[in-house]
Amino acid sequence: MKFIFLTLFPDLCRAVMNESIIGRGLKAGAFEAEYVNIRDFAGNKHNRVDDSPYGGGRGLVMQAEPIFAAVSFATKELTNYKLLCLSPTGRTFTEQTAKELSTEDNIIFICGHYEGIDRRLLDELQPTEISLGDFVVTGGELPSLVIADAVARLLPGVLPEEAAFTEESHWDGLLEYPHYTRPEVWRGRKVPDVLLSGHHENIRKWRQEQSERITHSLRPDMLL
Amino acid sequence: MKFIFLTLFPDLCRAVMNESIIGRGLKAGAFEAEYVNIRDFAGNKHNRVDDSPYGGGRGLVMQAEPIFAAVSFATKELTNYKLLCLSPTGRTFTEQTAKELSTEDNIIFICGHYEGIDRRLLDELQPTEISLGDFVVTGGELPSLVIADAVARLLPGVLPEEAAFTEESHWDGLLEYPHYTRPEVWRGRKVPDVLLSGHHENIRKWRQEQSERITHSLRPDMLL
Repeated sequence: MKFIFLTLFPDLCRAVMNESIIGRGLKAGAFEAEYVNIRDFAGNKHNRVDDSPYGGGRGLVMQAEPIFAAVSFATKELTNYKLLCLSPTGRTFTEQTAKELSTEDNIIFICGHYEGIDRRLLDELQPTEISLGDFVVTGGELPSLVIADAVARLLPGVLPEEAAFTEESHWDGLLEYPHYTRPEVWRGRKVPDVLLSGHHENIRKWRQEQSERITHSLRPDMLL
Repeated sequence: MKFIFLTLFPDLCRAVMNESIIGRGLKAGAFEAEYVNIRDFAGNKHNRVDDSPYGGGRGLVMQAEPIFAAVSFATKELTNYKLLCLSPTGRTFTEQTAKELSTEDNIIFICGHYEGIDRRLLDELQPTEISLGDFVVTGGELPSLVIADAVARLLPGVLPEEAAFTEESHWDGLLEYPHYTRPEVWRGRKVPDVLLSGHHENIRKWRQEQSERITHSLRPDMLL
């Protein structure tokens, strides 16, 4: 799989993708990443890619043509791809979306500024609009990187043990049980006895009960 | 305001905070940022900060003490601060949370790995647990940076025009109206006439109607 970021801040995207767990997956060849600077497609001598909104109002709107040209460039040799655009009006991103996206060959992120992309670009290309949640950030880069991380970790060879993710939160519809590691007693707080018992079936049952209890108490909506 | 990141990947956090709109705000002194490497508080010669989970299972759990020591270090000279920990069991982050956080003097992000932080650290320090949504990522860094971005943009002097954010999505409970900028006709698609009319009251009404229509069609839950 290849992640392609169309952005005004390619260095930011590259810095994140090259670091951490995801960076290790990238270096190991578990997936690829490409960064296309929308400004390279400005088509004017000032490299300007935004302008004032028609009808007035504050802020600047990203122009349609530079993004359109960047998409054309990025997709030139691709036979199939998924075009995503982070947008407050998009479908809310969930683990289910991450699972679906993990089967794609190429995922292209249009990283706009939330102040706005010219609507005609979206009408023309009809990207899948995705929202990370009910909040506003300064640009599409960070939310796109969050999505890339959530998708990349599902790909074979990214997590240290391929199957690790199957046990985690949001995978089976329950929040995860609490974790404990060494030491056995920390600042007067002891690891629950059952986890030290070596009794696998009891441990499994305790964890299942904890998951259900936590989910019931914190996220009853997940049980519906 | 100061954002303090407790992380195993300080370079990643620094790279993001120094870039883009937020980076400009940081350089302009609209807020501060500090990065504390949890590994500096490992307290063992291998700089190890995680270990296997009690009770068995895949993955590694971050130990309580290194994070505890990092928090102690970071808060040593602070009289007040908000301690946040990204966690799938946390309250879902929204623009309302961003507004509340924007009044804090110091925000400390504990960036764990979602595979788990020893529960006793959370029981001991009782950070505010926040979730970005129903999905899993490889670490707390990116979600923390998203939150820092959403909060920082509300601070005076970060956005080019201080008041710009008041008009945006999720601020007044409606999704934003569509934006258009030059040229007037792009690939056969024309800017709506009303936006070219110069009639301010009609433009205001059109935008309000568009916001209501889009919200009703895409996010009827926001109207409840």
